[in-house]
Amino acid sequence: MQLLKDMISKKGKVFPGNILKVDSFLNHQIDTGFLNEVGKEYYERFKNDSVNKILTIEASGIGIACITAQHFNVPVVFAKKNKTKNIAADVYSANVVSYTHSREYTVIVSKEFLTPDDRVIILDDFLANGCAMMGLIDIVKASGATLVGVGAVIEKGFQRGGDMLRNAGIRVESLAVIDSMTDNDIAYRD
Amino acid sequence: MQLLKDMISKKGKVFPGNILKVDSFLNHQIDTGFLNEVGKEYYERFKNDSVNKILTIEASGIGIACITAQHFNVPVVFAKKNKTKNIAADVYSANVVSYTHSREYTVIVSKEFLTPDDRVIILDDFLANGCAMMGLIDIVKASGATLVGVGAVIEKGFQRGGDMLRNAGIRVESLAVIDSMTDNDIAYRD
Repeated sequence: MQLLKDMISKKGKVFPGNILKVDSFLNHQIDTGFLNEVGKEYYERFKNDSVNKILTIEASGIGIACITAQHFNVPVVFAKKNKTKNIAADVYSANVVSYTHSREYTVIVSKEFLTPDDRVIILDDFLANGCAMMGLIDIVKASGATLVGVGAVIEKGFQRGGDMLRNAGIRVESLAVIDSMTDNDIAYRD
Repeated sequence: MQLLKDMISKKGKVFPGNILKVDSFLNHQIDTGFLNEVGKEYYERFKNDSVNKILTIEASGIGIACITAQHFNVPVVFAKKNKTKNIAADVYSANVVSYTHSREYTVIVSKEFLTPDDRVIILDDFLANGCAMMGLIDIVKASGATLVGVGAVIEKGFQRGGDMLRNAGIRVESLAVIDSMTDNDIAYRD
């Protein structure tokens, strides 16, 4: 998606440790006009797949999912980071390891909001090692819903997540795949 | 807002401890068509106030803020719950006590995304004791931005937050104010 690459060039910042900061338009301050273009792009890619629900995870995925969902005219469900030690019986849960924050957490989705009738796409801001995405995929599987595909606005192609999912036969629609990045250059996969 | 009251009647559930569950349309599963009506309503209320930024807090406020921001054509900034023990120098921070989860946490906003030029409304899903809202107001004040007003989709009028803010001279625009609730009846303030 050329507009995304232009936004990254203009407003993104690369930091040591393969960190790409896009918090001026994607995941702290949010440019909703830009997100609307993201939503249109996802709609173009998935419009023939009878998607009836968009799943994401708090917090950065929610804006992307909500604005994209308007184009599909479907509801969003966002997985919550569990705040208690107990997992209730009426939720699906999965463990996620966060490398960014060096910790493990559990994400939950109420059973009533994912059913075998659902055809789901999972959206998030970043796809890197794929741990959060794997957790959400496990939840979709547990619910009996159909996973249509997953989408990340930005995929770090030099980490294993995206290709691991593709190798598992999952449809991955990243709007930009970064193969390498340095202070002054970002190389995208074609 | 009549549509909101209708949604609460139809889909909300009251639980002991003055808990109102609206997670089928507002803060777990999200009805984006409904949120679009919420966004229109906020636009009607604040359209003459030169709002140029909408501030909210992760996670449940983000969808509301993003869809509302499309009507104003302005960016959203969401305050993040701090995940490290240290507060960086380049952020505004505030402490928030969560009664729901019996814990205290710090919320942060990057200094670059709130400036004295900003005219801000703060949006969230619920206003109850007002602690999260007070934290966000402190951050707006620290930044030198102008606080135009605050808006909660649902205000629990029987808790002190909304009236405390009004008494402090802050403009509060709640789309429904609940004065009392039981299993089978919710009484709204006129």
